[in-house]
Amino acid sequence: MFVGAFDIGGTKTIVGILDQAGKIKEKKVFPTQASDCYAHLDYCLVVLQQLLNRAGINKEELSGIGVTLPGVVNSEKGILVLAAYEKWENIPVASYISENFTGIDVYCENDVNACAIGEKLFGLGQQYQHYVWMTVSTGVGGAIVCNSELVKGANGFAGELGHLKVEYEKPEQCHCGQYGCLEVQGSGTALNRIVKERAQDNADFANDLRASGASVDGAGCASLANKGNQVAQDIFHQLGNYLGKGISYCANIVNPQAIIIGGGVAASLEFLVPGMQEAIAECTFEPMKNIDIRMTELGYEAALIGAAALVLRERKGGC
Amino acid sequence: MFVGAFDIGGTKTIVGILDQAGKIKEKKVFPTQASDCYAHLDYCLVVLQQLLNRAGINKEELSGIGVTLPGVVNSEKGILVLAAYEKWENIPVASYISENFTGIDVYCENDVNACAIGEKLFGLGQQYQHYVWMTVSTGVGGAIVCNSELVKGANGFAGELGHLKVEYEKPEQCHCGQYGCLEVQGSGTALNRIVKERAQDNADFANDLRASGASVDGAGCASLANKGNQVAQDIFHQLGNYLGKGISYCANIVNPQAIIIGGGVAASLEFLVPGMQEAIAECTFEPMKNIDIRMTELGYEAALIGAAALVLRERKGGC
Repeated sequence: MFVGAFDIGGTKTIVGILDQAGKIKEKKVFPTQASDCYAHLDYCLVVLQQLLNRAGINKEELSGIGVTLPGVVNSEKGILVLAAYEKWENIPVASYISENFTGIDVYCENDVNACAIGEKLFGLGQQYQHYVWMTVSTGVGGAIVCNSELVKGANGFAGELGHLKVEYEKPEQCHCGQYGCLEVQGSGTALNRIVKERAQDNADFANDLRASGASVDGAGCASLANKGNQVAQDIFHQLGNYLGKGISYCANIVNPQAIIIGGGVAASLEFLVPGMQEAIAECTFEPMKNIDIRMTELGYEAALIGAAALVLRERKGGC
Repeated sequence: MFVGAFDIGGTKTIVGILDQAGKIKEKKVFPTQASDCYAHLDYCLVVLQQLLNRAGINKEELSGIGVTLPGVVNSEKGILVLAAYEKWENIPVASYISENFTGIDVYCENDVNACAIGEKLFGLGQQYQHYVWMTVSTGVGGAIVCNSELVKGANGFAGELGHLKVEYEKPEQCHCGQYGCLEVQGSGTALNRIVKERAQDNADFANDLRASGASVDGAGCASLANKGNQVAQDIFHQLGNYLGKGISYCANIVNPQAIIIGGGVAASLEFLVPGMQEAIAECTFEPMKNIDIRMTELGYEAALIGAAALVLRERKGGC
């Protein structure tokens, strides 16, 4: 048996077929069509059928479809309650897909929550019962796992780490309207902004970027940091310090064994860790400071594997 | 049937007998003898027997004894792992009491966790599935309830709200060694300190305290606030703002429906709420701001009722 997986993100979607061990057999990446959610789901089903044909797998061999969505999801009812797109509101994703694809079982979840569930089944979650899954990419998101159970909270919003206040003295304004949120101080977007500011203020750093052919953004900064550039490493230290403050709040409140980091910026985790550890040491109650900081074992396709895990955990047991 | 309850606090202990509805039938309050934990437990049993005699209740009518302890408790094994007292370490409280009292079933828990469990059975926890129980007295403590389950975390430390960092610009040093912790900025101890400072800096406020016969501490400040004194109310506003920052971190991380406040300072909750709401509005992600702030329904003896609840929940179902 296999599972279908849709990772529907803010800008791109991945449709895949995975086996029961969470290995990707086939996948296709394409832009998310934000204008019409139903049309986008229709297209995901077309792609799924193409992938099944290519792999020589019958529809009947799929034990379900898992879908990760960029927003608030009522996973019991399979409804996307609210997404980043204006019109994506109260969409009955599970029933729509099921009706249009042989009545198959469909499971939906918020993307970061699905990563935490995927990690439980196929990654570091096999070692940890209490962990926080934190994604650091365009924004900062999170999911909380206590006693191997996903914490969802009153409205399914638990783990909104991006809006923890981590900068009080010179806070930037976040797109949410507030100031000093982790999302505006410690995300990939923040990294790009800081690199640009630093390149303007520091001619040597700007020259170093130019000389090594690195772009004036997070990717360029990562490239320089890898070459030992101190300013680039300091920028990651600052970013890590903000992330560490958010981690310290989590540590004091839910006492996790580990923070598992995913998302694009996680590729530079080695340069983030010193700043993270500095903030954790400064802001966490002594007995809870001993937190493992680990990179996800699910890799770049964490959310796609998470989508498959939504189906597979029904059999294997999971979050 | 009845239950025995020991609320062993940092400075005082309450031994009581409660009925199955959580009502206190008999109780006695006495100082905690920190020098010898076993001698103190022996004395608690002597008091329990006195109370049984007074009430005309046989030992056999007790269905168990619940014990709340001021520290880290391994509740499964009934062990006090670590307390504020140097020698109170790895004490097998449950087995010791059971061996010395007819082999009775004994249940142990950290005091604030027990309050949260008591609230579930006999208070506001009947209305809420997701809540944070926050005690504001000498220190600040907390307990997290998600899906009607107590969150304990990796080492049983979850809910250590007292060491959340809430002041970055002019932080006071906490007894834990760190700076700006909620415990040093927003506790009853902090309240006493702020009142003393304000009375030194502000002659009118000092005069108002003196004129109304109020003491230069939290109690005096509460008394003046009740009479409409603006400086006294501003002090509570400041304290509430710090507590609200801690609440905002909880809201973003575990998305509770309510914060339930207990402890001595909670008596002045009406003066804390405006500052709390200001901080919640400033630091919480929009969809999670709608948090009820409620005073515990368990009253002054919350931890004693919590101790009884440890026994009673085994029958009624609870956290």
